[in-house]
Amino acid sequence: MMSKQNTIRRIGILTSGGDAPGMNAAIRAVVLAAHQYSIECIGFFHGYNGLINQEYRLLDNSSVKDIIHKGGTILKSARCPEMLSETGVKQAVNSLIKLQIDALIVIGGDGSFNGMLAIEQHWQGQLIGLPGTIDNDLDGTDFTIGFSTAINTAIEAIDKIRDTADAFDRVFVVELMGRHSGHIAFNVGIACGAEQIISFENFNANDANKKVNEIVSDIKHHQSQDHQSYLIVLAENLWPNGAQSLSEQLKLQYSIDCGTCILGHIQRGGSPVAKDRLLATKLGVAAIEAVLVGKTSIMLGELKTEIEEVTLNDAVQHTKIVAENLVVAHENILALAAQNKR
Amino acid sequence: MMSKQNTIRRIGILTSGGDAPGMNAAIRAVVLAAHQYSIECIGFFHGYNGLINQEYRLLDNSSVKDIIHKGGTILKSARCPEMLSETGVKQAVNSLIKLQIDALIVIGGDGSFNGMLAIEQHWQGQLIGLPGTIDNDLDGTDFTIGFSTAINTAIEAIDKIRDTADAFDRVFVVELMGRHSGHIAFNVGIACGAEQIISFENFNANDANKKVNEIVSDIKHHQSQDHQSYLIVLAENLWPNGAQSLSEQLKLQYSIDCGTCILGHIQRGGSPVAKDRLLATKLGVAAIEAVLVGKTSIMLGELKTEIEEVTLNDAVQHTKIVAENLVVAHENILALAAQNKR
Amino acid sequence: MMSKQNTIRRIGILTSGGDAPGMNAAIRAVVLAAHQYSIECIGFFHGYNGLINQEYRLLDNSSVKDIIHKGGTILKSARCPEMLSETGVKQAVNSLIKLQIDALIVIGGDGSFNGMLAIEQHWQGQLIGLPGTIDNDLDGTDFTIGFSTAINTAIEAIDKIRDTADAFDRVFVVELMGRHSGHIAFNVGIACGAEQIISFENFNANDANKKVNEIVSDIKHHQSQDHQSYLIVLAENLWPNGAQSLSEQLKLQYSIDCGTCILGHIQRGGSPVAKDRLLATKLGVAAIEAVLVGKTSIMLGELKTEIEEVTLNDAVQHTKIVAENLVVAHENILALAAQNKR
Amino acid sequence: MMSKQNTIRRIGILTSGGDAPGMNAAIRAVVLAAHQYSIECIGFFHGYNGLINQEYRLLDNSSVKDIIHKGGTILKSARCPEMLSETGVKQAVNSLIKLQIDALIVIGGDGSFNGMLAIEQHWQGQLIGLPGTIDNDLDGTDFTIGFSTAINTAIEAIDKIRDTADAFDRVFVVELMGRHSGHIAFNVGIACGAEQIISFENFNANDANKKVNEIVSDIKHHQSQDHQSYLIVLAENLWPNGAQSLSEQLKLQYSIDCGTCILGHIQRGGSPVAKDRLLATKLGVAAIEAVLVGKTSIMLGELKTEIEEVTLNDAVQHTKIVAENLVVAHENILALAAQNKR
Repeated sequence: MMSKQNTIRRIGILTSGGDAPGMNAAIRAVVLAAHQYSIECIGFFHGYNGLINQEYRLLDNSSVKDIIHKGGTILKSARCPEMLSETGVKQAVNSLIKLQIDALIVIGGDGSFNGMLAIEQHWQGQLIGLPGTIDNDLDGTDFTIGFSTAINTAIEAIDKIRDTADAFDRVFVVELMGRHSGHIAFNVGIACGAEQIISFENFNANDANKKVNEIVSDIKHHQSQDHQSYLIVLAENLWPNGAQSLSEQLKLQYSIDCGTCILGHIQRGGSPVAKDRLLATKLGVAAIEAVLVGKTSIMLGELKTEIEEVTLNDAVQHTKIVAENLVVAHENILALAAQNKR
Repeated sequence: MMSKQNTIRRIGILTSGGDAPGMNAAIRAVVLAAHQYSIECIGFFHGYNGLINQEYRLLDNSSVKDIIHKGGTILKSARCPEMLSETGVKQAVNSLIKLQIDALIVIGGDGSFNGMLAIEQHWQGQLIGLPGTIDNDLDGTDFTIGFSTAINTAIEAIDKIRDTADAFDRVFVVELMGRHSGHIAFNVGIACGAEQIISFENFNANDANKKVNEIVSDIKHHQSQDHQSYLIVLAENLWPNGAQSLSEQLKLQYSIDCGTCILGHIQRGGSPVAKDRLLATKLGVAAIEAVLVGKTSIMLGELKTEIEEVTLNDAVQHTKIVAENLVVAHENILALAAQNKR
Repeated sequence: MMSKQNTIRRIGILTSGGDAPGMNAAIRAVVLAAHQYSIECIGFFHGYNGLINQEYRLLDNSSVKDIIHKGGTILKSARCPEMLSETGVKQAVNSLIKLQIDALIVIGGDGSFNGMLAIEQHWQGQLIGLPGTIDNDLDGTDFTIGFSTAINTAIEAIDKIRDTADAFDRVFVVELMGRHSGHIAFNVGIACGAEQIISFENFNANDANKKVNEIVSDIKHHQSQDHQSYLIVLAENLWPNGAQSLSEQLKLQYSIDCGTCILGHIQRGGSPVAKDRLLATKLGVAAIEAVLVGKTSIMLGELKTEIEEVTLNDAVQHTKIVAENLVVAHENILALAAQNKR
Repeated sequence: MMSKQNTIRRIGILTSGGDAPGMNAAIRAVVLAAHQYSIECIGFFHGYNGLINQEYRLLDNSSVKDIIHKGGTILKSARCPEMLSETGVKQAVNSLIKLQIDALIVIGGDGSFNGMLAIEQHWQGQLIGLPGTIDNDLDGTDFTIGFSTAINTAIEAIDKIRDTADAFDRVFVVELMGRHSGHIAFNVGIACGAEQIISFENFNANDANKKVNEIVSDIKHHQSQDHQSYLIVLAENLWPNGAQSLSEQLKLQYSIDCGTCILGHIQRGGSPVAKDRLLATKLGVAAIEAVLVGKTSIMLGELKTEIEEVTLNDAVQHTKIVAENLVVAHENILALAAQNKR
C-alpha cells in the first residue's frame, strides 16, 4: 500500500465518531512528530464536517501543549451523515485538494474508516487511520485508544456499586457500553469480580429465559453461602429491552430485589489512563512515519505489543473477539462454573 | 432530654436505610470512643432487622481497624418494614432489654429515626441518632454523613460527561439522587458549572412546559455564542416521568440532540472524602459523650461548624433548604440570568 | 470600610502566592458575576508581576468556560519581591491608575494580602481579597479555597501508603504541607486514622526527644496487639530537620523499620473538590457584590457557613487554630490516649 | 520442566518482596481456580517468614471475597533474610513437607524467585512463580502485576504537579521508583508529556554534568518559546545523590527555580487498575493449570498478549528493556530532539 507521493508538506488530521480518552494524546503526538519533519498540520473540527466545510486551523506545538491528559478532543468530533452521500465525499475531497493536503490522518472507529474508504475513491493523497473508540471493536489492533480508560472508569464506578450492594446484600444489573461487542463488558466484568457477565461471547438473546433461570439459581446458591452481593454485568444492545427489563423480570417473577445502573456516557470521558496515553503517542508518531514512507489506506494498531498496519478494509470486519485466555480464566473462577463442575 | 441512667456498660449500634460513605468512619469513632470509657459495643447487622433477630457481634478496636476509608457499612444496612408494626418494635425492644443495652446509636436517615421514635415508646434506654444519608435531607445538621462524598462522586462523573458533551457540542440531562430534596442536585449543578439546574428550589412540576421553552431558548442563546456543550442537572423524583422524558421532549419537539445519564447508585458508594470522615468521627465521639451525660432521643449534627443536638422529632421535619448564599451565587453566574438582566 | 466610588466600570483580578485548587473557580465566578453588571474584567498574569509589568488581558465569559474543574490558575501565579519595595508598589499603583481600574480583587494568602495593604497606601480604588491557599492559615474564614482539595489529595495518597504499610506491618512518617499551621496535618491525620499526628497544636520542637519516646512506646503497644501498620502524620517545618530525621531516629536508635514520605507539591494540584468549587463560586460572586456597594480593604470568607467580611489586617493575624471539636474527637479515639486513660 | 507428581491435593501460596497492587487479585484467582479442582489452598503470611514459621491459614472462596480491588496483600509481605541461609531454606522446606504441600505458588519479584530456586534444591514439590512487582523488572513477561497501577498512580500525581508547575512556569524534578530499571520512569515520563526523562535507557551517571548542560539549554529554549512549565522525570538510584541533588545544581549553578518531588511509596498502594486485575486473574488461573499438568520451576507471565512460561532462572536475568517502539516514539516527540534535528 505505497503511495506515489514523496514529499510531504502538509497533513490534515481529524477526530470522528464517538470521542474516546486518548484522542488528544494522539493529536499531540501527530503534531509533535510532524513538526520534527517540518510538516504542517491542519486540524479539521467536528470530524468530517470540518473537512467538508473547511472549518480548520493550523496546529503547532503550542496548540498541543498540556493536552495529553485531557479527555474529549480539542478538534471536537461528530457524526457526519453527509459522508454517506457522494456529494459529501466529493466536498471533502475538494477541501483536501484545495488545501493541498498530502495526507489525512483520521482518529476514530469503523464509521470513520468507512469515510476514508469513500474518500479513497476520489483522492490521490494518503489516508491513515488510528483506532480511537472506547468499544475496542476494530480488527488489527489488540486495543483501541480509549478502551483502557473506559474499562477503568467502569470498574471504579462498579466498585462503588459493590459497596452499596454489599451493604444491602443486593443484586445489581450494570449495563456497559460496547455498541455490538463485548470487550468492555467482559473485561470489566472480570476485573470487578462480577458474579455474572452477560456478553456477546457467552449469551444469545434467544436464550434469555434460560439465562434468567440460570441466574436465579446461581443467586440462590450464593445467598445460601451467605455471600454479600451479586453483580450482573451486561453488554448494551444485547438483552431484550435492556438492563431494566432484566432487573424487572428478577423482581417481578422471582421477588429478587434488584437495582439497575446504566453507566452510559461517563465511560467516554475522563483523563486517559497511562495505557491510552502511551498507545496514542506511539500510534501518532507511527502515523507520521507511515506517511513519510508513502503508506496509505491503512490503520495503525498495536498487535502483540508491536505497532502493525492493516488495511482499512481489514480493520472494519468486526471479527475480533475477547481474548481466549480471558474467557478461560473467567470460566475457571466463576462460582457458577465451579458449582457445575463438581 | 436527660435520661435517668447513670452508668453505661453496653451500647448497641446499627446502620439503617440507604448506606452512605462515612458510616464506617462513624462506627469506628463510636467503638473507639466507647473503648475509652470501657463501654462494650454491640453491632447489630442489617439495620433494625439485626436488632429484631438478634443478629449481632461484639465490636472491639480491632473490628474497626482500617475501615475509616471504606464505603458501605461493615454492619450492613437494610430497610425494615417490621419496624412499622408494633410487633416489630416490641421485638426490637425485647432484644435491647435482653441484651442489657443501655443506649442505642442509630446511623441513618429519617426512616431510621422514626424507628427510634417508635422504640422510645416502649424502652427506657437512651437513643442517639447520627445523620447518615447522602441526601442531606435531615434538619439539625448542615451536612449529613455521606453527602459530601456523594456530591464529589457526582461531579467527577459529570466532569467526564462534560468531556464528551464538549467534543460533540452536545446537550446532556443528568439526573441525580436526593429523594425529595435538591441538596445534591443544586450543589453538584453549581460545582459542575451546569448551564441549568432543575431542582426543588427553583422548579415546580406544573411548570414543565414553561421550563422546556426557557431551556430551549437558553440553549439557542448558548449555541449562538459558540459555546461548546450544555449540561442540565436534574433532581430525581421531580420532572414528570424523569430525565429520559425531558431528553425526549427536547429531541422530538425541538430537534435538539440530547443525551441522558441517570447517575444512580454510584453516588452511594466509594471511599468517603475527608469531610465525611471528619464529620463522622466528630459525631461518633460526640455520640458517646452524649450517652455518658444521659442524653436521649436526640440527633447529633453539625450546625455552623459546631456539634449540636436536636430532638429526633425536629430532625425529621424536612424543612432544611439549600443555603441562601448558594442560591444567590447561582443566580449571579448563570448565563440565563445574565441574559435576562441586561 | 466604604469607598467613595459609586460606578464600577472595570475591575482587575490576579492570583498570587502558592496556587490552590479552586482559584480558577473563583476567577470564573468573578468574571461571570461582573458580566452581570456590565463590569469589565482585566486579568493580570503572574500575580503582582503582571500588575507591575502591565501583562494582562480582558476576561469575558468565554475566557472562563470550562475552567471550574481545573487545578492551577489560568492567570498564573508568582511570588513578587518587587512588592516589598515602595518602588514596586508604586509601579503597581501606576498600572491601576493608567488602566482605570476601579477595584482590584486578589486571590491568595497572607503575602498577597500584604501586597494589597501596601497598595492601599497609594491608591484610592477598592481592594478585595479572597482566601486562596491550601494551608488554611488565614483568619476570618473557616476554610480557604484549596484547603479541602489539598486534604483530600493527601488522604488519597496516605490511603495508598496504608496499603503498603499494612502489607509490611510497617511504620511510616508522612510529612504534609501547611507552612506554619497544622490545619492540613491535623485534618488529614484524623481522616486517615493516623496513629500519630504531630502538629503545631500538640507538639513543640523542644519536646522532640520526649515525643520520640512516646511514639516508640505506642508503636510497641500496637505491635503487641497485632496491629498492622503505624502511620505518623507530621506537619512540615515542625520536626527538627524534618520527617527524614524522625524516621532515621526511629531506625537507628530503636531499630524500627520506618518509611518516609514527603507528599510535597502534589497537594497543590488537581481538580478541586466540590467544597472548593462551591466556596470559590460563592466568594467570587460576593466579591463583585462587595465591590458594587463600595467595600474596600476587606477579605471575604466563610464563617460558620455564612459569607462574612474581615479587614485585610485582621485576615493575616495567624490566630486561627484547628477546631476544638476536632481536637476533642481526636483525643477520644486515639489508641495512645486510650491507653493512658485506662 | 515436568514434575513427577500427579495428584494435587494441597497447594501453598505466599506474597513476597515489595507489595504490588493486584497481588490480592492473583491470590483470589489462585484460590477460586484451585477450588474448581478441589485443591486445598494454604496461605502463608509475611512472605517466606510465614512458611518458615508455619504462620498460615486455609483459604477458601469466602477468604477471597471482595479483595480483587484492594491494594496491598491479604497475606502480607516481607523481606526474609533467613532465606539467604541454608538453615532458613531447610526450615521452609520442612514446613512444606510437614504440611503436605504439593505445590508452592509465590507472587513476587526476583528476590522471591531466588527463594524458590533455593527451595528447589531441597524439595520435590512444584514451584510456580507469578510476577508481582511494580518495577516491571522481570524477564519473561511484558508486564508484571502492579506495574500498570504504579504508572497510573504516578501520572495522576504528576498531572497535579503539572498544575502547580504551570501556574508558576516552574521546573520540577520528579523521582520515580523502579529499583534499577527505567520501566516506570520511561512509561510515566512519556504518559505525562515530561520535557525530560532521565532513565537507565538514555542516561549514564558519568554523563551527569553533560546532561545538566543539555537540560539547562533545553529549559532556556522552552522559556524562549513562552512554554509554561518543565518536568524532569527521573528514575531512582540513577542520578548521583538523587533528585534533590539535580534540583540544587539547577538552582545554585544556573539560578533555575526548581521544585523536587520524590513520589515514593504511594506508587506501591491503591486499588489496582483493570489491567493489573485482569493480568493477575489470568496468571492466577494459569498457575493452577500449570500445577495440574505437573509444571515446576517456572514463572508464568504475559508475552505478546499470550500467557507464557519461562524458567525461574530466566525470569531473573534483568535483561528486559523498555520497548523499542516507546523509545522511538519518545525521540520523535521530544522538543529537544526536534530542536537538534532541524
